[in-house]
Amino acid sequence: MNARERWNTLIENELAAYLSDARIPRQLAEAMAYSVTAGGKRLRPRMLLAACDMLHGDVARALPLACAVEMIHTYSLIHDDLPCMDNDDYRRGKLTNHKVYGEGFAVLAGDGLLSYAVEIMLDAAIHDAADQAAYLRALDAIIKGAGVHGMVAGQACDLMNEKQPSREEKTLRYIHENKTGAMLRAAVCAGGYAAGGAETDIGALNAFGAAYGLLFQITDDILDVEGDFARMGKTIGKDAGTEKLTYVSLFGLETAREKAEAAAREAHAALAAFGERAAFFHELTDRTLTRKS
Amino acid sequence: MNARERWNTLIENELAAYLSDARIPRQLAEAMAYSVTAGGKRLRPRMLLAACDMLHGDVARALPLACAVEMIHTYSLIHDDLPCMDNDDYRRGKLTNHKVYGEGFAVLAGDGLLSYAVEIMLDAAIHDAADQAAYLRALDAIIKGAGVHGMVAGQACDLMNEKQPSREEKTLRYIHENKTGAMLRAAVCAGGYAAGGAETDIGALNAFGAAYGLLFQITDDILDVEGDFARMGKTIGKDAGTEKLTYVSLFGLETAREKAEAAAREAHAALAAFGERAAFFHELTDRTLTRKS
Repeated sequence: MNARERWNTLIENELAAYLSDARIPRQLAEAMAYSVTAGGKRLRPRMLLAACDMLHGDVARALPLACAVEMIHTYSLIHDDLPCMDNDDYRRGKLTNHKVYGEGFAVLAGDGLLSYAVEIMLDAAIHDAADQAAYLRALDAIIKGAGVHGMVAGQACDLMNEKQPSREEKTLRYIHENKTGAMLRAAVCAGGYAAGGAETDIGALNAFGAAYGLLFQITDDILDVEGDFARMGKTIGKDAGTEKLTYVSLFGLETAREKAEAAAREAHAALAAFGERAAFFHELTDRTLTRKS
Repeated sequence: MNARERWNTLIENELAAYLSDARIPRQLAEAMAYSVTAGGKRLRPRMLLAACDMLHGDVARALPLACAVEMIHTYSLIHDDLPCMDNDDYRRGKLTNHKVYGEGFAVLAGDGLLSYAVEIMLDAAIHDAADQAAYLRALDAIIKGAGVHGMVAGQACDLMNEKQPSREEKTLRYIHENKTGAMLRAAVCAGGYAAGGAETDIGALNAFGAAYGLLFQITDDILDVEGDFARMGKTIGKDAGTEKLTYVSLFGLETAREKAEAAAREAHAALAAFGERAAFFHELTDRTLTRKS
């Protein structure tokens, strides 16, 4: 088993252990576990562990942070899927949380995952950190990325924009930098902090995270439209003709692809100082640029 | 201005300052501030500061914890009022959050308050704690009280109990010890930790918090019924005749009153070691036992 497969196993086992805590009411734990194990690719926790490893940190000690980042990502999806938000019945081919457990439980499962994520990180910071100050900075990066100066701010702007649609790139960037980008940046920076990385390293990770987040979102917008082409046999995507603000609806497919390529170049460039140790992130960037799903 | 009035002013000013942070999207900050300033009595933050002061701690340094506890309490009310939960249109005579800002924003305002509360406490722990280890234990007590081993667990059981009503005192106690009690206990323990209190002090605060939480909930159940008597001119309360599990519906009004008195005696007894410095909590206990609102 190579290092990356080992990370995946570590993440899955640790998430399962946290969610089988018998002191959590059974139905609440079940609702939380349902969405955490609903086929996510573990992108954020793997990026966190990879950043920690790249800077010669202790991956096992960073594992609670990685699991917390995945729980926070999952809570945001559960709340985002609610009828009062995006109103989605399916995610990754499975029924969304509220379709299985009801809306009330879905709200609580999300609240529970966010609280539990903080609890897990804090427990590790108090009882198991080799360098507590560095670990607390990692925790701080994650909670700032998740909250009213990060992900929740992005979601709020996204929701406002649905009511009063804007066609400005500034708005689009703000939404994506916060709704999607903030937690991607937080994950790599937290991995760097947990490894005791210097501020210059964290700065480079932050620059990589910002560029990668943009790349991730533009390719997501492109896939949405191409998926619609394929499914509908139409020449116009669901987003292109509606008010929804995406890179494709704003710039067209060709310019969106150019912007994705520029973001990928920026992501690669941000990794320069890490040399060969950045192989994981170079490959991830290439795979994301050419991804088909 | 006496010490207690000064605490109230400190809490109000600090909450207002946090919520006027210009980096938070305007409408999100507005929705959060609406519920935080909707007439709450600041019971939990005042208890936190009083516990800190009782143990000769620095009240100003504990203020971020106090504000965080109030934000967490407010987030729980916003989510609890949602149509998929208790479906309340009014709270303390004002429209509930989702009636003013819509359900989507109410979910996000709650998520934002919980995240912001953690961010505020962590910032204080990292940058402004005289004793960081003690401050982190305070933070830990609060987040454990709020989450899947505390308040969220209690809310989940309450929701389950609405679907499959139980008539067991064990269930009633579990719901109240977690839904209401956990954050009251966490608030006084966090105040004690922030003051650098010894484990015996924290133990006494925890015992007080548990007894006071029970007293608070039983008197709440009694007021609900008496309020109904007064309003409806009926001889039966709304809870007494329905399936809702309360101390009054389970034991009747007289036994519920006896249980409240017993809880108050227990609360007073838990304060013995603090002598005259516990005046705030003795008075609070007496006022809660005889409260009319």
